[in-house]
Amino acid sequence: MAELTDLLKANQSFYDAFNERNVAKMEKLWSEKAPVACIHPGWAPMFERSQILDSWTKILRNPKAPIVLCRQPQASVYGVGGFVICYEQVGQVYLVATNVYTLEDGQWRMVHHHAGPTPGGPGTAAEPPIQLQ
Amino acid sequence: MAELTDLLKANQSFYDAFNERNVAKMEKLWSEKAPVACIHPGWAPMFERSQILDSWTKILRNPKAPIVLCRQPQASVYGVGGFVICYEQVGQVYLVATNVYTLEDGQWRMVHHHAGPTPGGPGTAAEPPIQLQ
Repeated sequence: MAELTDLLKANQSFYDAFNERNVAKMEKLWSEKAPVACIHPGWAPMFERSQILDSWTKILRNPKAPIVLCRQPQASVYGVGGFVICYEQVGQVYLVATNVYTLEDGQWRMVHHHAGPTPGGPGTAAEPPIQLQ
Repeated sequence: MAELTDLLKANQSFYDAFNERNVAKMEKLWSEKAPVACIHPGWAPMFERSQILDSWTKILRNPKAPIVLCRQPQASVYGVGGFVICYEQVGQVYLVATNVYTLEDGQWRMVHHHAGPTPGGPGTAAEPPIQLQ
């Protein structure tokens, strides 16, 4: 259970780094040893750590960047891997995020972030408006 | 490298199960021991294995379900965890997917699937049309 708690703390620090515009904290969170990936909403996937961190630097330094609040995070742990699914509240709009982490030297470090649209926020039933797949 | 190859094979079997409408193969792919999650495009997240498998059964039995082709899969492994980022080609439209796996009794089993929109298909530069985040 301590691992779940620590994983949720790491996930919250990701959103804290974002909202504090703290590039150093964001860099520290991302794994240095494992392969990483990132899919921002509306972006193609990225797989290079330097490219991913450059993207975060640009986003965090953009004065139009919004505040993104982590809502209803749900953490799952399997060995040295873990992921958190959470809603991202941006004003009155919600996105949904998959954040994947690995334990690196005893710390949960991010290996993948994928955020995109979702039909509703916390409490939305998992029934689709239409079957897309 | 064998792990990467095996992970890519597991990921292809996910799309094979989909296109063969093979519910048994889909069920076999999903982890039975680890916590699981699934975010279909346009659906809210699901966290119960039975609910996730029910959703796949409904989708696979839907005569309107499309063929979904896995394009440009990129696999990453960290210990017993791994993920594959790939495009999903549905006719002329592309989605992007994050598929997370864990090694379970020597087999890569799916613990999370998250598919959603992407601005283009294989070869799209990771530059956004606008900065959403």
